[in-house]
Amino acid sequence: MKKIIYIFGLITLLSVVVSCSSTPGNTNEDNNQVSENVEESDPLPSWNEGATKTAIFNYVNDVTNTESENFIPVSERIATFDNDGTLWSEQPAYFQLFFAIDRVKVMAKDYPEWKNKQPFKAVLEDDMEELKKSGMKGLLEIIMTTHAGVTTDEFEASVQEWIKTAKHSTKGKSYTGLVFQPMLELLDYLRANDFKTYIVSGGEVDFMRALVTEVYGIPAEQIIGTRVKTEFDYNNGNPVIKRLPALDFYDDNEGKPINIHNIIGKKPVFASGNSDGDLQMLQWTASNKLRSFMLYVHHTDSIREWAYDRESDIGRLDKGLDEAIEKGWTVIDMEKDWKVIYPFEL
Amino acid sequence: MKKIIYIFGLITLLSVVVSCSSTPGNTNEDNNQVSENVEESDPLPSWNEGATKTAIFNYVNDVTNTESENFIPVSERIATFDNDGTLWSEQPAYFQLFFAIDRVKVMAKDYPEWKNKQPFKAVLEDDMEELKKSGMKGLLEIIMTTHAGVTTDEFEASVQEWIKTAKHSTKGKSYTGLVFQPMLELLDYLRANDFKTYIVSGGEVDFMRALVTEVYGIPAEQIIGTRVKTEFDYNNGNPVIKRLPALDFYDDNEGKPINIHNIIGKKPVFASGNSDGDLQMLQWTASNKLRSFMLYVHHTDSIREWAYDRESDIGRLDKGLDEAIEKGWTVIDMEKDWKVIYPFEL
Repeated sequence: MKKIIYIFGLITLLSVVVSCSSTPGNTNEDNNQVSENVEESDPLPSWNEGATKTAIFNYVNDVTNTESENFIPVSERIATFDNDGTLWSEQPAYFQLFFAIDRVKVMAKDYPEWKNKQPFKAVLEDDMEELKKSGMKGLLEIIMTTHAGVTTDEFEASVQEWIKTAKHSTKGKSYTGLVFQPMLELLDYLRANDFKTYIVSGGEVDFMRALVTEVYGIPAEQIIGTRVKTEFDYNNGNPVIKRLPALDFYDDNEGKPINIHNIIGKKPVFASGNSDGDLQMLQWTASNKLRSFMLYVHHTDSIREWAYDRESDIGRLDKGLDEAIEKGWTVIDMEKDWKVIYPFEL
Repeated sequence: MKKIIYIFGLITLLSVVVSCSSTPGNTNEDNNQVSENVEESDPLPSWNEGATKTAIFNYVNDVTNTESENFIPVSERIATFDNDGTLWSEQPAYFQLFFAIDRVKVMAKDYPEWKNKQPFKAVLEDDMEELKKSGMKGLLEIIMTTHAGVTTDEFEASVQEWIKTAKHSTKGKSYTGLVFQPMLELLDYLRANDFKTYIVSGGEVDFMRALVTEVYGIPAEQIIGTRVKTEFDYNNGNPVIKRLPALDFYDDNEGKPINIHNIIGKKPVFASGNSDGDLQMLQWTASNKLRSFMLYVHHTDSIREWAYDRESDIGRLDKGLDEAIEKGWTVIDMEKDWKVIYPFEL
C-alpha cells in the first residue's frame, strides 16, 4: 500500500515537472515595507499583527506559564514541522526532484550510454515530453539511480556538491535560500521557549540532513523523513552503510504519526504542515491530552510565492483545510500574515 | 534473514528460560568496601582505580579539550549504549521475556480457555518443560500475544503496571533495581561533558521507554530498539497507534548501525555493549574519523552478578572479545573494575 502511494507520488511529480514551465511564480520585487514597525522585542518580526500571530503567542505564553493549568513540562515540548511547503517552497516541484534531474547530468560522464538510453537521454536533453513518455518506470529509474547505489557518506557529499551551484528555475536563488523567513523565526521562538523542534517530512531523510541542518538550526537527529533501504558492509574494517534502490519507509500521511512514535516516542504538542499529507500528524497532535497547537501554512500568495490548495498536485490542501476550519486549527494566510516570505527579502 | 535471526533468538531465549533454575547468580552480601577511598570530586566513585577507569577519563578529557587535536564539537558527542547486559543484567534471561510470561498470567482472566490451551497452559502452570515442547511457534505466540493487539498507550500502561510488583527470581529485586551503578555514573559523567547518551538495544523500544527513562536519565527520543509493526487508526477523532503481531525492525548486529544512521544520522564517538550483537555498532563507532571510544562490559563476576562470555546463549561475547583484544578496545572486567554492581549495594 505504501509503495503504491509512493509510486503515485512519483507519477504526480513527473506530471508536474513536465508542466513546470507553465507554473506561476515570480521573484518578489516590491516588498519594501519589511522592517516597518518591527519592535526589537518581537520574536516574530516578519509576521504581521493579527489573529495568527496572536494565537501563536497566546499558546506559547500559556503552556510555558508554570501557573497555568495548561503548563507543559519541557520534556514534553515536542514540535514537529513538515518541510516541503511548510519550511521552504515546493513549487514547481519538490526540490529533491531537481536534485535527481541535476544528478543525472553530473553522473552522465560515467555513463556515456545514457546519451542514447531513455529515460536518461530525455533528462540530458531537457526533453520533458520524452521523459513523460518513460512513465512511472522511467522516473523510478531516475530516482533510484540518483539516490541509491552509493554509501551514505557519498550521497551526503553529492547533495552538498549539488547545492553549491543549483538554482531554482524561476526564483533564481539557491534552494536553501527559499526557506520561509517567518517560519525560521517561529522555530527560533519555540526553541527559545524550550520546545524541541523536529522536521517530519515526506522528503528523503539523508537528502534533508545534507542540506537543512544549518539553515533551520535543527540537528540531524531531529530530522525525520522517508528512507531508502540500507545495508551495513564491514568492508574489511572500513565499514560503510550502502543505500539500496528500494523504499524502506514512506514518511507521509499515516507514516508521519507512526514515525513520530517510533523515533520520538512522544506525542507532539505543536505540529505544522501545509498539505493533506500532514493531516494525520496534526490529528495525532490534536489528540494530545496536553494543550496542543495545530498550524497549517496556506499558500495564498501568487505574487511573492505561489497560490495553491485544493486542486494542486503538489502539496494539495483539501481535506486538511476542511478539518482545520471545522476544528479551529490555526491557518496561516501567507499573503496576509507574512511581511516577507524569504530571508533574501529582508 | 532478520526474521530468521529473531526467531533464532527467541528459541535461544526459550531454551534459557527452561534452564533458568540451574543458572548461577546470588544476591551480593559481602561488599562492604563501597565508599572506601571515594574522593568527592570523582565522577565515577563506583569504579576501582585502574586501566579501565583511567582510559575513560583520558578519553573524555582529551576530546573535550579545545586545545587538543582530538577535540570533538558538542554536536558530534553521540554516545550509544546497549541495554541488556550493558546497563542492566540480562540473566537468567532478558527481562522482557519475564514480562511476557507474567503478562500471560495477568491476561489469563480474560482468556479462560488458556487453562486448557498450550502454550498458555504451560506458562500458567509454570511448567517450563511443557512450554519447551511448544517450541518456537509457542514462544512466538506468547511474545506476540503479550506485545501486540493493543494500542501503544495500553502497552505502556501494561509494562508500568507489571514493574510495580515484578521481582527478579534469584535477586529478589525489581528489574529496574538491577541496573549497573557504575554505568549510571558513566552516563552522568558523559552527559556532564555534553555527550548525548542513547540506548541502542535489541530490546523492544516501547518496553524500554516504559521502564528505563527515569532510571537512566535518558528520554524516550534517545531510546532506540527493536520494533513491532504498527498502524495508525483515526478511531473517530481519538487516534491511536495499534501494535501489530509482526516484527518491524530487529535492532541487533547490523541493525544497530543501520538504526543509528536512520534515527540519529550521526556516527557515534562512544559506544558500549556486552555481546557479539553489539560488535557492528562498535565497529561503526571505531570507524569515526573523530577519536572514538569502544567499551565492552565483560561479565566476569560469578558472585555479585553472573560470569559468562563465549559459550553463553544470552549475551554471547566471543567474536567481539577477540576483536576488542586485537584492536585495543576497552574491556570492563566487572569483577575487578566495579566496586559495586547495583545501586542497592550502595
